Amino acid sequence: MTGEPEFVARLCTPFLSVDRDVLDRNIAELAHRAAASGMVLRPHAKTHKCLEIARRQLSAGAGGLTVATIGEAEVFADAGVDDLFIAYPLWPGGPRGRRLRGLAERVSLRVGVDSVEAAEALGRTLAGTNTRLLVELDSGQHRSGVLPEEAGPVAVAAARAGLRVVGVFTFPGHGYRPGAPTAAAADEARALRAGADALARAGLEAGVRSGGSTPTAAATDTDAVTELRPGVYVFNDAQQVELGTCDWSRVALTATATVVSRRPGTIVLDAGSKILGADQQAWATGAGRLPDHAGARIVALSEHHATVTIAEAEAPGLGETVRVAPNHVCAAVNLVDELIVTAGGRIVDRWAVAARGANS
Amino acid sequence: MTGEPEFVARLCTPFLSVDRDVLDRNIAELAHRAAASGMVLRPHAKTHKCLEIARRQLSAGAGGLTVATIGEAEVFADAGVDDLFIAYPLWPGGPRGRRLRGLAERVSLRVGVDSVEAAEALGRTLAGTNTRLLVELDSGQHRSGVLPEEAGPVAVAAARAGLRVVGVFTFPGHGYRPGAPTAAAADEARALRAGADALARAGLEAGVRSGGSTPTAAATDTDAVTELRPGVYVFNDAQQVELGTCDWSRVALTATATVVSRRPGTIVLDAGSKILGADQQAWATGAGRLPDHAGARIVALSEHHATVTIAEAEAPGLGETVRVAPNHVCAAVNLVDELIVTAGGRIVDRWAVAARGANS
Repeated sequence: MTGEPEFVARLCTPFLSVDRDVLDRNIAELAHRAAASGMVLRPHAKTHKCLEIARRQLSAGAGGLTVATIGEAEVFADAGVDDLFIAYPLWPGGPRGRRLRGLAERVSLRVGVDSVEAAEALGRTLAGTNTRLLVELDSGQHRSGVLPEEAGPVAVAAARAGLRVVGVFTFPGHGYRPGAPTAAAADEARALRAGADALARAGLEAGVRSGGSTPTAAATDTDAVTELRPGVYVFNDAQQVELGTCDWSRVALTATATVVSRRPGTIVLDAGSKILGADQQAWATGAGRLPDHAGARIVALSEHHATVTIAEAEAPGLGETVRVAPNHVCAAVNLVDELIVTAGGRIVDRWAVAARGANS
Repeated sequence: MTGEPEFVARLCTPFLSVDRDVLDRNIAELAHRAAASGMVLRPHAKTHKCLEIARRQLSAGAGGLTVATIGEAEVFADAGVDDLFIAYPLWPGGPRGRRLRGLAERVSLRVGVDSVEAAEALGRTLAGTNTRLLVELDSGQHRSGVLPEEAGPVAVAAARAGLRVVGVFTFPGHGYRPGAPTAAAADEARALRAGADALARAGLEAGVRSGGSTPTAAATDTDAVTELRPGVYVFNDAQQVELGTCDWSRVALTATATVVSRRPGTIVLDAGSKILGADQQAWATGAGRLPDHAGARIVALSEHHATVTIAEAEAPGLGETVRVAPNHVCAAVNLVDELIVTAGGRIVDRWAVAARGANS
């Protein structure tokens, strides 16, 4: 590739690298926008799973971190992060319950709940700790979460079980379609308001109304939402570019791959689903994108091959390298043990993906 | 779940477990079929990445292992496996070339090649070692590989570069569609014959004609093919069941997941793409399958949620566990550090996924 940074020749492809300056700009920009709107930014750390990135987010003003699992929370708690929200409808059975209680006894912990049964089970597990509960609402993705109008009984059950209910949360995941983010942000606001009203009718206050995702963040209703939990924004990815959330200058993480096979109009790269992840929404143009080749398309992906159609005139030769942006960066990061960190075309650090594989 | 093995309550979901008896039967059966047909079985270890499973395959008669990357080869070589085929069109630039040469100096090594340029580069890297080359053929998947009739010049270039050309290989990956395996196996046979003829015209003998994949294995033309390289067959997965390659009794690996949210006709599990992988062919019925619930469908998958439609009468309750077969087991195994090994409903071992993440 013309302009290939010097370090590329010293590494074996495929690898994931992060441009630190782009990362820092992404972190600073959303921190500023949240602060300017009076919202707390509580970034989702499942995207990066890196202590170094968590520290940068907290230094930039984040009010704690969001995680998806008890295992992720344990990794960040071990590193000294003391305010964690497991934004997930946890079921605290067996050893999971003991681990959850252990966490609650050493950090300021919040967990999600979306059923009376789970509220009661969490009450038994967490009684006597200072854990705060947020009721999860379904704002339109139809994954987990109760309908906003039905949040009252879950909140009441949690309060009766001795837990502190502090609010409601939702993930407007149905915003992950071209043209959908603005409407999904409006759904999010409606759901959070309706959920807060349902809690109020039950005599409970929803001081925290937590929402947010990277594609909907810019359209957030800052009156309805008190807290944002985007994850992907630190790196961005091909999906965000194709959704129109950002341009290539804001994509901080890419895979570097080598051309291992070629024929006219087609190259095959050594980056497959085991480094890029296999996520591909129906609307995606392919299995990832080549930021330096706008017209190229990844038309097939197997574990160690990406088949790319590209104009022959700009196709790199055998043994040359290209950058590939994964469709969904959270999946790609979870496939590697470390990220190569660059600045100004040089390697400046390597960050362990400390919570990689922390699924439970 | 009714009949949930006792060990499940002692583990945190989601986790992957392997039924050792089913695994051993899968290994023995294909070893027997290959031997009965006079073919060498050289299983692809990218599926399991486990030393313990490689040893079982070799004990059952496998004639060496297949791997996808230099990194995988290094892991198995370190464990004493001394006959390895990197069935991939390797480009031996920079540190990759040094690692490849290091491997060639300590094990019996085979590598793939599909271009004159790579043949010459491999010659420079591997001169003086006993490495054997196989020319990769495109039998219909249109990924890497030369057209069979055009294998001659690549083989000649390799021989001129001082390398031992021992044959041809192909992956009939276009057999991964319902109804396609038989035709893909016929394409495989045609390609291997034509590639061998092309080598013969160039004065080189294709003693090895290597093919095979799990769905096409049963339809292999045993006159044309001397060696089989299936990977998935050790575990099988939802794709293989939906392709008709096997039934559920042959699926050795499943995820165990907990119901964390539910509404009538729908349950949400804590197993998402970070444990199952996101592979989903266009013809798949969903993002994996529930072996114990034939009518259930995984209609949406995110990182830590599987949304499952299921008849309300058989839907498990909150906090109950279910088994999930990933669509593509190779991707799932690569997401975990260890496999729980069971026999007769008890944990009998834990196997490290030793080559997990060995992408380069």
